[in-house]
Formats: sequence, structure tokens, C-alpha cells
Amino acid sequence: MGGDNAPDVVLDGLELAAERHPKARILLVGDEARLAPLLEQRKRAARICSLRHAPDAIPGDMKPTAALRLRNASMRVAIDAVAAGEASGVVSAGNTGALMALGKIVVKALPEIDRPALAAIGPSARGDVVMLDMGANIVCNARNLVEFAVMGDAFARTVLGLPEPSIGLLNVGSEELKGDDRVRQAAEMLRESGLAGNFHGFVEGHDITAGTVDVVVTDGFTGNVALKTGEGALKLMIGLLKQVFASSARGKLGYLIAKPALDQLRAFIDPRRYNGAVLIGLNGLVVKSHGGADAVGFAHAVDVAMDMVTHRLNERIREKLATLPPPRSATAEIGVADPGSAGSGVELR
Amino acid sequence: MGGDNAPDVVLDGLELAAERHPKARILLVGDEARLAPLLEQRKRAARICSLRHAPDAIPGDMKPTAALRLRNASMRVAIDAVAAGEASGVVSAGNTGALMALGKIVVKALPEIDRPALAAIGPSARGDVVMLDMGANIVCNARNLVEFAVMGDAFARTVLGLPEPSIGLLNVGSEELKGDDRVRQAAEMLRESGLAGNFHGFVEGHDITAGTVDVVVTDGFTGNVALKTGEGALKLMIGLLKQVFASSARGKLGYLIAKPALDQLRAFIDPRRYNGAVLIGLNGLVVKSHGGADAVGFAHAVDVAMDMVTHRLNERIREKLATLPPPRSATAEIGVADPGSAGSGVELR
Repeated sequence: MGGDNAPDVVLDGLELAAERHPKARILLVGDEARLAPLLEQRKRAARICSLRHAPDAIPGDMKPTAALRLRNASMRVAIDAVAAGEASGVVSAGNTGALMALGKIVVKALPEIDRPALAAIGPSARGDVVMLDMGANIVCNARNLVEFAVMGDAFARTVLGLPEPSIGLLNVGSEELKGDDRVRQAAEMLRESGLAGNFHGFVEGHDITAGTVDVVVTDGFTGNVALKTGEGALKLMIGLLKQVFASSARGKLGYLIAKPALDQLRAFIDPRRYNGAVLIGLNGLVVKSHGGADAVGFAHAVDVAMDMVTHRLNERIREKLATLPPPRSATAEIGVADPGSAGSGVELR
Repeated sequence: MGGDNAPDVVLDGLELAAERHPKARILLVGDEARLAPLLEQRKRAARICSLRHAPDAIPGDMKPTAALRLRNASMRVAIDAVAAGEASGVVSAGNTGALMALGKIVVKALPEIDRPALAAIGPSARGDVVMLDMGANIVCNARNLVEFAVMGDAFARTVLGLPEPSIGLLNVGSEELKGDDRVRQAAEMLRESGLAGNFHGFVEGHDITAGTVDVVVTDGFTGNVALKTGEGALKLMIGLLKQVFASSARGKLGYLIAKPALDQLRAFIDPRRYNGAVLIGLNGLVVKSHGGADAVGFAHAVDVAMDMVTHRLNERIREKLATLPPPRSATAEIGVADPGSAGSGVELR
């Protein structure tokens, strides 16, 4: 029931998803009276979906603390199904803060994970890049960053299908001495871990879109700012392009002639291709579809969830975590960031 | 003597600058035997420049600590002239880390300023935007952020010529409760300061290029990552555009026809227009020209310095600082970030 054009967009997205994943079984949660006739109109979706009634829906602007009290909301009923082991994961286009809070509190973190993180995929000159944390944890310590690297590695293997993803730690320079104690300690821990072979070292902001590494690890504050800054820069450029093409007869003509080529560019940076941020590190998979996503975008978020389920994301995370140096010594050394005051429901946009 | 094509580019840049600032007096510091004949060939530059010999030059890859020991390096002799009050400011295309270290140690911070910051100008959909800190201070507290806001305000008034610049504090959301203690405290302090009328509140990454505010304030870690991520995204887009225009005959033809329009776009995002990062908050003006800048870019960095001198940047900073709530109570309340371990020579690139 969440997102700008729910539930229609969700159902249209499921119709597309059903084509790609005919053996999936989807538990569709929401207002039965509204959903049943819509589902009936979509033959493929109807074949893979079973309906579960939830009388309430969490509004997009509701605070997570309030959302936690709506026990009959569609998002809550879906999350409860994950916590109960009935469903492997949940895909929602609803309230991000509420979804993250419900994920953490109801589904709960994997026992080995201190902090779940929000991971997303973006475009680069050399293919797709996974980046985390995009805003679930505002303040992070070195151990958190190392856990994010483990989760990002598993994500790149399962969702992007990369056999040996390279991992970079976001910093203000690539030399070993750059940055604060926290990133330097995290780098040291990664070099001593089972991920050492995949750890590229520090990367900088421009390395994200250059595709220097497959996985970019950072804290939720920096990651959220970097994601939105990059999106903003692309948006500026697209706006300027539209403006100059429209500014003269020659511009308009040139645009018309080059249009098939420019459509390739549009397809490459199409945000629908990158829809589906994942709250990773939980006892179940929680995927956030953009609230403004259309059916193609929502279907992509379902793809992401299916990839993680079929390629056993969580098992891979747990295997790699076992290779880390013991956490007690690590946490004892870290004093820069305060892990207590973090993670207060960040909107991805 | 610093930068990729020194000293020729510097002298060509001064020739352009001399046209715009015929009444400026420039102290040109470097190897006299090399500079004198080059200066003779440039009539306009020769009229405003006087030469001062410095036998050494700081290599681009020298660590700041080593650079501090080269007392006869051109950068050092120029910085000494600023510290001695002989020059109002210095413009260098040389080693960023060395320039920042020399600025802080030799020119020294204004007595009211705890931490000088690196400010830069970038493009947005609604005009130029000032952003700071771009990497001089990796770890910042709330008071530092407030001082950055004061310096950014003065910078926007003097360099961009805005009578009432709006100021935004970079965060992961625009609501008052978002972010960590540090940004929330800084916002509170700004609302109680003489800048309250210009303080817009929190802004997000996409607001930078949207031009939501004229001044974006953040810590040096986030600012450095945001700057490079934004640059990287623009670079990705430019690379993709080139690729699709070259990919087919229609693309090539469309490009040729639209070229005059596309040249406007190129001019708008021309990095030379944004050359000249400023180490702001010192007893003199320190401007860093990009090492790869050409003569047009270097001349722009000289413009930035001239604007700050003629519009009395530092006096404006000191006036506004006097309106802040007393610093002792402020610093006492802040415990999240450790101000001790910061500022270890970040390369802007």
C-alpha cells in the first residue's frame, strides 16, 4: 500500500516480476477489498500472489516511532511474515524510516552484525557499483565499516553476480595516512580479514562513478550525502542538456537527429535500473523500492530481492563474518565515533 | 613555480589578470633566471609584477612536513610576504598540502577562528554555490561548522557579490531532528547568531547542485567526498555523452548540428570558471589554483583573490564572528567529534 501510486504500481510491477520469476511465491499484503479486483485483472501476478488482508497503511510522512504502533498496517503484517519465517524477504515502496525501524526491531539483525546498513546500486563508467551505508547509521565505528564491507561483498556476489568483487573504503585521499582514525582502523582490520584479497584500499568520491571498485564502503552520513550529491549532479547535467537543446533551432534539430543515441544514455542512467535499496544484515531481506518508482522500477526491486534469496545472501555474509578478527579487541580500540546515538530513521529521498 | 605547466601557465595567467586588474601589484616569486625572460615577453604582466628570487621549489608530491623545512622555496617566500604584511594574499598552483600547512603555520588563523577551512565555488541550477570545508578539517565540532558558516557568508558576499547569501548546513535530511548531535547543535547556534536571518536550515546532497542555498556548510570529510562525487558524476555524464554521440552516424551528425548549443553547456560547467579554492580564516588570503589549470583558470584564481582583497573579506568575517554566542559555553557542550586529530593535509586534486 506504500509509494506514490500504490497499490496500482505495485501490482503492475508484480505482473512484470511474475514473468521473470514464474516460480516465485508472493504474499501480497494490504487492503483486500482494494487489492482483490486489481489482482484479478493481472493474470500472471495472480498466479504467483496470495493475498493477506491488512486494514491499515502507514502514511509516507509518519514518524517511525508512530509507525511501530500500527500493528495492522500492511508494512507491519508483511514484516511480521518475514520475522515468522513465512517469507524470505519483503519489498516495500512505503515510508523508508518506518521500514528500516520495523526491519531492525521486528526482523532483527543477524546475531553477528552490530548494525544493519542500507545498500544501493548505482552506475559507473565500468558497470554497476554497490554502495553502503546510504543512511541507516549516521555515526559508525571501524567495526561497523568492516561489517558493511562484508555485507557489500556478499551483495555484489549475489545481486551483481561478481565472483570476486573489489572493495574500497571511502576517504578523502587514497594514501594510507589519509582520513580519521576510524577509516584507518577499518582499513587495517580489512587487511587482516578474510576479505584482504578483495580489499582495494581507500577510494575517493570520484572513484564511485569511475568504477574503481565494485563495492564502496562508508558511514551512513557520508554515504547519504554522496548518493544525493551524485544524483544532484546528474540531474543538473540533464537539466542543462534539455535547456541547451531547446535554446535554439540548431539545438532542437541536433537533438532530434541524435535522439536514438541520446536514448541509450537515458537508458543507462535510468534510475529504475537502480531501484531497490536493501536494508542488509537482518534475519530476512528488506528491500526498499523508491516511493516514486513505476512498475518497471518496482519489478527491479523484486529482482534484487529474488537475487538475494536465490543466491543465499545471508549465508555468505555469515561465512565471511567468521573470518574477521574477534570483535572485542576491535571495539575496545575504537573511541572516535559514538555508536550509541545513531541511526535515527533517514529518508533515502 | 607550482602546477603542471609552471611557470609558463602562471605567467600567461598573469598576463590575462593584468588586463582585468591593471592597478593590482603582483609580487612574482620564483627562480629569477627562469622568470625574468618569461616576464619580459608579457608586456601587461610585466607592468604589474615585481620579481622576487626564490631558489627552491616544493615538488608536487612532497609531504607538508618536509615542505615546511624548505625555507627558500617560492611558495614559502610568497607566504612569508603575506605573513609580513607585504602582500594581502597568495595565489599558488603548487602542492595543496604544503600550501595549507604553510598558510596555517606561517600566516596563521585569525584570532577568533579555531580552524581555517577550504572553500570552493561550484555550479548549480540557480547560479554559483560556495561550499566549505572541502577537506582542511577531517573532524569538526559544532563550533567549527558555525565558523565555516560565517566564513562562507563573507565569501559569498565578497567573491559572488551576493548582498544576502542564504546558508545551508549539509545533512542527511532537511527535518530538524535529522543527523548527529554535531549538526543539530551547529544549527541551533546559527539560529541564535547574527546569521540567523540568512540561515536556511539543513540541506541535502542534491540541494548543492539544485542551488537551494548560496553557501553549503559541512565538515572537511563530507565536503571533500561530496565535491569529488559531484565532479565524478559530471565526468561520467560527459564521458557517456561523448560515447553516445560517437556511437553512430546519426549521433555524430546530431552533435555537429547541436554543437553551438552544447558549447554553451561546456562553458557553463567549465572547471576553469570554478578554479581557485580558498584557505579561508587566516590573517591573509591563500588561494589554491588547480595544478592542472591553464592560463584562463589561473587568471580566475587571481580574480578570486582580488575580489576578497578589494571587498575586505577578513573584516567581514570578524564583524560576523562578533555576533556569535560566546565560544566557551558552546565548546563545553560538544563532545561527539574530537577536534584534536584533524586536518592532516588533504589534496583537493
